Amino acid sequence: MMEVALFGAGRIGKIHAGNVVRQPGVRLRYVVDVDGAAAGALAAAHGAQVATADAAFADKSVGAVVIGSSTDTHADLIVRAAAAGKEIFCEKPVDLAFDRARTCAAAVKRAGVACMIGFQRRFDPTFAALKERLAAGEIGEPEMLVVTSRDPGAPPVDYLKRSGGIFRDMLIHDFDVFRWILADDAATVYATGSVLTDPAVGTVGDVDSTAVTICTRRGRLALINTSRRAAYGYDQRFEVLGSKGMLQAGNHKPTEVTSATSANVSQDKPEHFFLERYRAAYALELAHFFDALATGKAVRTSIDDGVAALELADAATTSWREKRIVEL
Amino acid sequence: MMEVALFGAGRIGKIHAGNVVRQPGVRLRYVVDVDGAAAGALAAAHGAQVATADAAFADKSVGAVVIGSSTDTHADLIVRAAAAGKEIFCEKPVDLAFDRARTCAAAVKRAGVACMIGFQRRFDPTFAALKERLAAGEIGEPEMLVVTSRDPGAPPVDYLKRSGGIFRDMLIHDFDVFRWILADDAATVYATGSVLTDPAVGTVGDVDSTAVTICTRRGRLALINTSRRAAYGYDQRFEVLGSKGMLQAGNHKPTEVTSATSANVSQDKPEHFFLERYRAAYALELAHFFDALATGKAVRTSIDDGVAALELADAATTSWREKRIVEL
Amino acid sequence: MMEVALFGAGRIGKIHAGNVVRQPGVRLRYVVDVDGAAAGALAAAHGAQVATADAAFADKSVGAVVIGSSTDTHADLIVRAAAAGKEIFCEKPVDLAFDRARTCAAAVKRAGVACMIGFQRRFDPTFAALKERLAAGEIGEPEMLVVTSRDPGAPPVDYLKRSGGIFRDMLIHDFDVFRWILADDAATVYATGSVLTDPAVGTVGDVDSTAVTICTRRGRLALINTSRRAAYGYDQRFEVLGSKGMLQAGNHKPTEVTSATSANVSQDKPEHFFLERYRAAYALELAHFFDALATGKAVRTSIDDGVAALELADAATTSWREKRIVEL
Amino acid sequence: MMEVALFGAGRIGKIHAGNVVRQPGVRLRYVVDVDGAAAGALAAAHGAQVATADAAFADKSVGAVVIGSSTDTHADLIVRAAAAGKEIFCEKPVDLAFDRARTCAAAVKRAGVACMIGFQRRFDPTFAALKERLAAGEIGEPEMLVVTSRDPGAPPVDYLKRSGGIFRDMLIHDFDVFRWILADDAATVYATGSVLTDPAVGTVGDVDSTAVTICTRRGRLALINTSRRAAYGYDQRFEVLGSKGMLQAGNHKPTEVTSATSANVSQDKPEHFFLERYRAAYALELAHFFDALATGKAVRTSIDDGVAALELADAATTSWREKRIVEL
Repeated sequence: MMEVALFGAGRIGKIHAGNVVRQPGVRLRYVVDVDGAAAGALAAAHGAQVATADAAFADKSVGAVVIGSSTDTHADLIVRAAAAGKEIFCEKPVDLAFDRARTCAAAVKRAGVACMIGFQRRFDPTFAALKERLAAGEIGEPEMLVVTSRDPGAPPVDYLKRSGGIFRDMLIHDFDVFRWILADDAATVYATGSVLTDPAVGTVGDVDSTAVTICTRRGRLALINTSRRAAYGYDQRFEVLGSKGMLQAGNHKPTEVTSATSANVSQDKPEHFFLERYRAAYALELAHFFDALATGKAVRTSIDDGVAALELADAATTSWREKRIVEL
Repeated sequence: MMEVALFGAGRIGKIHAGNVVRQPGVRLRYVVDVDGAAAGALAAAHGAQVATADAAFADKSVGAVVIGSSTDTHADLIVRAAAAGKEIFCEKPVDLAFDRARTCAAAVKRAGVACMIGFQRRFDPTFAALKERLAAGEIGEPEMLVVTSRDPGAPPVDYLKRSGGIFRDMLIHDFDVFRWILADDAATVYATGSVLTDPAVGTVGDVDSTAVTICTRRGRLALINTSRRAAYGYDQRFEVLGSKGMLQAGNHKPTEVTSATSANVSQDKPEHFFLERYRAAYALELAHFFDALATGKAVRTSIDDGVAALELADAATTSWREKRIVEL
Repeated sequence: MMEVALFGAGRIGKIHAGNVVRQPGVRLRYVVDVDGAAAGALAAAHGAQVATADAAFADKSVGAVVIGSSTDTHADLIVRAAAAGKEIFCEKPVDLAFDRARTCAAAVKRAGVACMIGFQRRFDPTFAALKERLAAGEIGEPEMLVVTSRDPGAPPVDYLKRSGGIFRDMLIHDFDVFRWILADDAATVYATGSVLTDPAVGTVGDVDSTAVTICTRRGRLALINTSRRAAYGYDQRFEVLGSKGMLQAGNHKPTEVTSATSANVSQDKPEHFFLERYRAAYALELAHFFDALATGKAVRTSIDDGVAALELADAATTSWREKRIVEL
Repeated sequence: MMEVALFGAGRIGKIHAGNVVRQPGVRLRYVVDVDGAAAGALAAAHGAQVATADAAFADKSVGAVVIGSSTDTHADLIVRAAAAGKEIFCEKPVDLAFDRARTCAAAVKRAGVACMIGFQRRFDPTFAALKERLAAGEIGEPEMLVVTSRDPGAPPVDYLKRSGGIFRDMLIHDFDVFRWILADDAATVYATGSVLTDPAVGTVGDVDSTAVTICTRRGRLALINTSRRAAYGYDQRFEVLGSKGMLQAGNHKPTEVTSATSANVSQDKPEHFFLERYRAAYALELAHFFDALATGKAVRTSIDDGVAALELADAATTSWREKRIVEL
């Protein structure tokens, strides 16, 4: 039986808790959160106990930690978990600072523990099927990737202030998709952005709409467009043009109802936001994590992937701030 | 805590077991099956015990039964469960014989217990959303219903022999959809059918392809087309024409990948069969059942619905056999 | 140069005139219509002359007639044209009376002229492509045909009175589609219908909503659903289930714009009515007619097809009126 | 009667000839081409005469010219036509050299004649409907434009040599779409490109795959992705994200047939290439041109639009060549 300590009892922590308890041979032992009431409620719902971080790390019976607490705690928890010899699942990003993320990666490597970063999109049934078909050669060699990534609405300005900026906070997932799908290294990054949805975003030095172009070492092109606000919901699509065709990953809809009226022929909007769209992906990534631990296989989204995505986010941030093309 | 006895440890029994244990306040206490090994394995997987039917009915702590055993056992188990004062969830059909189904309904009524029949399609997210929008008046008054209901492949001939014929075995779901969606009583039923997919179907006195037309008391029209074999998978669609428009329920797909090649532009086939397509519906119907028990609300698909669907199946069988229009 | 006399300067006559003048080697010589002003305007627009029927038939230089006048004139004009040795293109139906239609067919045969009936749907790009792929074996043997055929709104009651009833007026096209697609003879026809859109339809002894089931000699099944009113426009779809798959013919839309808003994701309604939906088909059927004349090939939709479709319309009318299954 | 001289009897010339003769009140008088046989055949097909450029310009009865000859002749023909007082329709581009294009625009202005540039996409039914709905406020203020523009295959290398490069030859249409849809001026342009489909493209100093990002003065973002080769045909889509939703222009398909087999569910590829996809647009742009002349309205795609698109093409070429962001 693998005993697990969960850090973070918020929105994503609840998702992970539900998925942890569904794994055969895995038990949720502790929930750790600075908000004692939240930790207590989540622990109670799943027959776990509330603990401090110290206690969780000290307990030898705990074999793995799932880190879903706030971003600024990730690096410290990873380092401590690695030191304590725990296997690690951690939400993205590793850290907002590239150097600190690299330090974490080194600590993980020294400790010889697994450290999976929660790039859940790789486990989305649609995205994963596309990747598999691409890898099987269905459209030949990939040449161009177009990613559309739009949230239904911006988080509070207070959150934005501490977010590290849109490239690190939101596009980090898209940078990981880029790396995963094109399977090539970025040679140049160009990023531009605007404040179009809410002037408040600009007051904290951030943008809400971005366009990023990456050219890889082999000349493959990636175009990423992002917005903090899509009135029709969470828009998560990408398409790959290959030498023999194109593969597109479309949005998921709540239902398959079509309505034809005197106005038009309509269908559902996309799933509202990430908790709905990636519900299956969140379950599958944790299943993969525990399966990898059980079978000794490597995790599919390692801390190195987390570091590499952050490097791209940093490059994009620099490109946008300094209005120049960044070479990597 | 509601203690539950599950009858049947086969394919559908496993689905129900998994959904029972997920309900808050509900515990799977017993698994009953003539195949002791199957019962044992399923019980063990969910921390339940194997029991005989007698023992399960005798245990006063058991508040509800879930019947997923073979069709020929349904009626007897319903009557015994009702006599024992247990709340009942039973897979369709109540029985292959109309009179016996009515006897069951009477027994349930006398006992004053709930008896929900497993017309899971009413709980399918797409079908349920369509019904809700229809009821809300989105397309005015319903006028015409077209149901397409095709299996990916026929069951073994051995099964067909004991199935009661395609109208009772397969179309019973479609008859329930008809009653639910048009909310009107059938006035006439016309059914015709052919053996087109496999001559073996004809040797047991059945057909594999059918066309059924129902005209309701208010003149609404329903056309149901059914086949035991659709090479592209499980095809479960219907559409309602109303005075102000049309609502269509389409198939669900495993993923939203689109592939464009020199051949064509393609998407996934529909979900393969009922276990995949109605996965969510099976979970939602049991959630509804236990919620109805907990809150004292009526169950949405009662034994009367089971009897009424069977009456239509009988009428269709007669129409087909006697080559005539049947009035109800 | 093939000289043509056009009968009928109404809505469909105008369509045909425009298509006649576009054929290479074909000249519109005369326009004949009881409404002299309409004839004059149409003739003028295309550099033709107004003539009486007598004059048109008497003119030896006229090689072909295109009959787009009112239904009650078709039979007489066909017989006269055949007697005059003219090649004939005539709008459906040949006549509302089956015997009279057969008389026309005999006259045509005696005269040895071509006589093409305007079942334009066979020339619709979507329908024709489906037929070709079906014939090429893409889905194996056809087993089931489901036809959806709905008008955007009913014609005036005055028209309905003289229309021959919905089965002869509207479904005659669907009966031809059935014959063309399944390539098998009807063995039994069952038709039912209701007045659901406007009580006035019932006052003239007609219905506005129908369900027709045909079983062919080889056991293939066809289900046709029809309504005089679809709030979302002209709905012209059919699908064929075959032993190896399904082919569906969908509606055509004016544009490929998709709109995603906070309400839903919508597309255009289907093309409004037959003039829009079958614009290409009307052009292609006349091109085929004149090409067949020029090359000596048989026309693809002969007067025998017109007679056969009428026979099905009669059978359906009888089935509906007498509430019984009609054997053919 | 407006008499027209057509320059160019090649592929696009034939399209224009067919559309000219369909305009009421317009007559195709002359066809001019260095290839006398081609000119003769096209003139004969439409009842026109072959003429030299000199003769066509000298004939006072000629009111308008349609220029569909090779790119290197456009500027000279525009200047001569303007001097002769003819109204002008000219295929894109005005010229490959920006200064020369501006000189043409000045000549046109001095002469006071109309000069419409053949940006036919603005007349495509789907694109035009999208623009109209955008202008009507359906999705609020536009924020982001994503253009996908891919040819089915590259032209011969010999053509590429004289094409002015992919940004001037192929993307000039996309730059016009950008200007038309976002209705704002470009502030910065970034372009990158690769040789991915055929090394021969690189040998003539061109690329076959490009990514262009434009930021407008108001901060709106446009991302254009282009390839010379899409195995699935001509891919012509764009989407606009606005403050209240999104409008997407999708590809057109030859038919609306759907095929469901054991492999997948498929539809037609997009229309093969520009002659098929923009057939309606080519007809509508000429109808607009002659209607504008007849009514004295301004043409919708003026020579200024041609100059402005060329300016963007130049900026993109510079950005790509010099690996830098270009400010306008």
